[in-house]
Amino acid sequence: MQIGLIGLGKMGGNMAERLRRDGHEVIGYDRNPSSPRDVDSLEALVEKLEPPRLVWVMVPSGEPTRATVADLNGVLSGGDVVIDGGNSRYTDDQVHGAMLHEKGIRYIDAGVSGGVWGLTEGYALMVGGTEEAVKIAQPIFDSLKPAGEGGFVHAGAVGAGHFTKMVHNGIEYGMMQAYGEGYELLKAVDLVQNADAVMASWQQGTVIRSWLLDLLVLALKDDPGLEDIRGYAQDSGEGRWTIEAAIQNAVPLPVITAALFARFASRQTESPAMKVVAALRNQFGGHAVGKEGTSGTIPVS
Amino acid sequence: MQIGLIGLGKMGGNMAERLRRDGHEVIGYDRNPSSPRDVDSLEALVEKLEPPRLVWVMVPSGEPTRATVADLNGVLSGGDVVIDGGNSRYTDDQVHGAMLHEKGIRYIDAGVSGGVWGLTEGYALMVGGTEEAVKIAQPIFDSLKPAGEGGFVHAGAVGAGHFTKMVHNGIEYGMMQAYGEGYELLKAVDLVQNADAVMASWQQGTVIRSWLLDLLVLALKDDPGLEDIRGYAQDSGEGRWTIEAAIQNAVPLPVITAALFARFASRQTESPAMKVVAALRNQFGGHAVGKEGTSGTIPVS
Amino acid sequence: MQIGLIGLGKMGGNMAERLRRDGHEVIGYDRNPSSPRDVDSLEALVEKLEPPRLVWVMVPSGEPTRATVADLNGVLSGGDVVIDGGNSRYTDDQVHGAMLHEKGIRYIDAGVSGGVWGLTEGYALMVGGTEEAVKIAQPIFDSLKPAGEGGFVHAGAVGAGHFTKMVHNGIEYGMMQAYGEGYELLKAVDLVQNADAVMASWQQGTVIRSWLLDLLVLALKDDPGLEDIRGYAQDSGEGRWTIEAAIQNAVPLPVITAALFARFASRQTESPAMKVVAALRNQFGGHAVGKEGTSGTIPVS
Amino acid sequence: MQIGLIGLGKMGGNMAERLRRDGHEVIGYDRNPSSPRDVDSLEALVEKLEPPRLVWVMVPSGEPTRATVADLNGVLSGGDVVIDGGNSRYTDDQVHGAMLHEKGIRYIDAGVSGGVWGLTEGYALMVGGTEEAVKIAQPIFDSLKPAGEGGFVHAGAVGAGHFTKMVHNGIEYGMMQAYGEGYELLKAVDLVQNADAVMASWQQGTVIRSWLLDLLVLALKDDPGLEDIRGYAQDSGEGRWTIEAAIQNAVPLPVITAALFARFASRQTESPAMKVVAALRNQFGGHAVGKEGTSGTIPVS
Repeated sequence: MQIGLIGLGKMGGNMAERLRRDGHEVIGYDRNPSSPRDVDSLEALVEKLEPPRLVWVMVPSGEPTRATVADLNGVLSGGDVVIDGGNSRYTDDQVHGAMLHEKGIRYIDAGVSGGVWGLTEGYALMVGGTEEAVKIAQPIFDSLKPAGEGGFVHAGAVGAGHFTKMVHNGIEYGMMQAYGEGYELLKAVDLVQNADAVMASWQQGTVIRSWLLDLLVLALKDDPGLEDIRGYAQDSGEGRWTIEAAIQNAVPLPVITAALFARFASRQTESPAMKVVAALRNQFGGHAVGKEGTSGTIPVS
Repeated sequence: MQIGLIGLGKMGGNMAERLRRDGHEVIGYDRNPSSPRDVDSLEALVEKLEPPRLVWVMVPSGEPTRATVADLNGVLSGGDVVIDGGNSRYTDDQVHGAMLHEKGIRYIDAGVSGGVWGLTEGYALMVGGTEEAVKIAQPIFDSLKPAGEGGFVHAGAVGAGHFTKMVHNGIEYGMMQAYGEGYELLKAVDLVQNADAVMASWQQGTVIRSWLLDLLVLALKDDPGLEDIRGYAQDSGEGRWTIEAAIQNAVPLPVITAALFARFASRQTESPAMKVVAALRNQFGGHAVGKEGTSGTIPVS
Repeated sequence: MQIGLIGLGKMGGNMAERLRRDGHEVIGYDRNPSSPRDVDSLEALVEKLEPPRLVWVMVPSGEPTRATVADLNGVLSGGDVVIDGGNSRYTDDQVHGAMLHEKGIRYIDAGVSGGVWGLTEGYALMVGGTEEAVKIAQPIFDSLKPAGEGGFVHAGAVGAGHFTKMVHNGIEYGMMQAYGEGYELLKAVDLVQNADAVMASWQQGTVIRSWLLDLLVLALKDDPGLEDIRGYAQDSGEGRWTIEAAIQNAVPLPVITAALFARFASRQTESPAMKVVAALRNQFGGHAVGKEGTSGTIPVS
Repeated sequence: MQIGLIGLGKMGGNMAERLRRDGHEVIGYDRNPSSPRDVDSLEALVEKLEPPRLVWVMVPSGEPTRATVADLNGVLSGGDVVIDGGNSRYTDDQVHGAMLHEKGIRYIDAGVSGGVWGLTEGYALMVGGTEEAVKIAQPIFDSLKPAGEGGFVHAGAVGAGHFTKMVHNGIEYGMMQAYGEGYELLKAVDLVQNADAVMASWQQGTVIRSWLLDLLVLALKDDPGLEDIRGYAQDSGEGRWTIEAAIQNAVPLPVITAALFARFASRQTESPAMKVVAALRNQFGGHAVGKEGTSGTIPVS
């Protein structure tokens, strides 16, 4: 079927490619003139699409997506369908859905997982919206998703798609940190000769085999012992939103939160909290104090 | 090759079966007369095996394994090989290895993963011991492990096998808890209509796809919403030992520890710690106090 | 000096009393006719106060406070000062401050600590607002705060008072949980005969002596072993907001967050996350499975 | 009364001083000849004391204490009393108590808190041993402890004193970290002008006032903003043992453990766990990847 695709970066470009391979007509637009765009304005995009139009937005979350959806609200008509395939917060979706709804434009939020492998393996999709809207876009979802039974879920009303993808990423934080902690403990003891070899062996037959473990083994093959990488990790929003959603719902998430905080801490050169701890240790005792007797000093507390 | 196998429970029985299917001669012993044992005493087992004998111990960790290894020390001879395939703590291995070494008996600790699927899919093996000892037992390991490249690692000296398996289980704790937390958050919001369907969809194309996720989806198919299961989880030693090893090595394991503590807490009917918190809240303020003004009450703190 | 006080519940009533004892003229208003109010409407309150008027709002945070501030915006004049002494979120203060500012009304947010002891011991105050506004209200702050050097801080611009009080409460969560965990561990071992006696002994000479510990000892005297209290703790907003502020600023707060999550968990009758863990344990192994050999069963993983 | 004191370092020296001020005859011994010792050998110490002898051991925990107790076992007689006032692990006490018991020597373990302030303010004491042994030593405990009701507890049998002190220190870890986290959050926002002033104000009237807070304010007066201190904290054993005891008793200690792990992490220059997280982020997506469209790049996951 025909679809407009806004945002021809890495993800958008690959998705356009996968859709075209499956026979869809993709009309691409990007505000960057040097991108491989098919039209040079939103208006031109709208003109090329036959109603009811299907437009997939694939631009960074936050302000860029909000601006794009607002612009689409200006140029689309009742019955058209807008799909936000970016990483928007589900609360943004609820605003967008309500805004478009006033003009009769349908809105779907689509959480997309799969990274650079998506082009060939397919993208896992988690979508939110009405049954009716999802039905219209289903041929597109079917082409994007991996072959097989899984890889697609209509999770609920508008916002449910990105909420689900957000939780997916929260779980991802916890899993990555779990592997990291295990690797660190293996490396910490002389008893284990080669932590990298252990990780590789775990790819088969174990309870903890996973796609993430496969990726980690790839990374270890490229860079044994991860000597060339810094122990410094960014976070991209979904982890934070997951904790915030949990707090609003009084759901305890100790593991996912610990994983997020480990990332925060990894980016600190110095922790004011630990300065307090160190200062207190100095205050109440001889923790920084020398040895008056050769019997040694009792750390006082 | 010929091997003696002590302990014909679920795991031991399946392993014997897998070894026999691959052409090995397994002589099984269990102290239980009603088990499908081939011999009725350790002495008889030893007599049936040709030196250098290979004996696989597959009994519960702790006292049963310690007693069995001590008994084997009495009946085996220099050059024989004992493999502890149970869930012993690596510190026990170091004691066992040293004890047997005095009589020239070789010792290997083998961490085994794979559960009830191991019989058909193979068991992931993590072993510790000398090169020489591992070489002798390699045909057995090759038959037990899954087909393919992974699934086996000689992790280091005696103790390294169970240490590695212990860390594997620690990671497993973290992963299981991560999935659990994500599931709980999905269930907590009305926005997501069917958390079970979400988990099933995640089996393909996502970053968090894994064998554990596949198992979870199986469990959800059997028992939608996990209505019939209690939120109560045991722990079997390796998780605790992982934290203890981390503490001894000053390695922070926030995620794995949070997962262990969540299990502890799940087994409490009432938490004395939370009684303290509740009692303090009562003490310093009107947290349990009624409303004098219809303007309501300010919770004091 | 003259001050209007809106909200004559437990906290408001005590504060009015403390102010009157120190010679201030307090005109109290509460929407509840049966309260000991001096006027029966906001309009009447405003009429009784000489400009520039000082009005202290002491009603529950959230909607009640927002409504009261909006009402005051309608009846007060440029130069008047509104002080929100409740538990508002600092982000509400920023909205209120900007709204009142348009009419030239000054706004101060005052975090108040001290609970039921405040009447006699004084209230710790953390305030946010302009120097000018704080200077006007200083005589009131001086009467409310405890005698001595501490107990009052002008923390910054509008919002800083409640932000500071919020962090205070976050720390309080961590401290309460720390005492709770220690008490629980003492109770868990036979070795320690009387955990209550231990807590009482800690009130003097130790590093961990504190006002909270004094309160806990009072609670233990009333209810030895805390037999009559349930291990179930509410949370009142500030703890959640603290974590949210931390996440927005990428500050790791492992201890305060663990304390909040312990409260969440204490209120659950059953944890869906732990159902997942339990279901997975059943799936991958004989964790719920009987004993085929009297050698026992190896828990599989 | 007469007492032998072994170990004349900072703590031992101050305690000897406090005991002498209260009229006791203290005979000090330290293996260091340049210490202010009264005798130059254990044998000489024993000779100077009249039976039943009371000997206080105040040397570093672990090997030094174990060696000293073993030596005392050689030179003391039935009916004598040995008090270990150091920071021994309670499991060591149980070994020492049993060993001395064979010769009829009584053993008391005494956890001591109070730091450098103990000399003037008194030491909080938590002791373990038989009623009979504690009764003999009570005059010494009464002189060492602070004036007033608290500051002393006979916590249970041998080991209970150090167990209790260990838990005290665990709580201390949690409290210190709670203050540290609060301070860090205050420092992280522009809204709060002076975090140091906030901490000082909290010393009066708040729920979180404590001796540790007083110490922190002293530290902040010496070094505003803690500019001159590194965010790097050691741990001295009791925190680790607290977690280990909790694990053995299946008691969840999320806050105390988080505090310990924060210290571990503070001492790492680079975290292998975070290298894993960073490597995985690189593997599954464009997290380190540039911008092909000016629409920007969607971080893939």
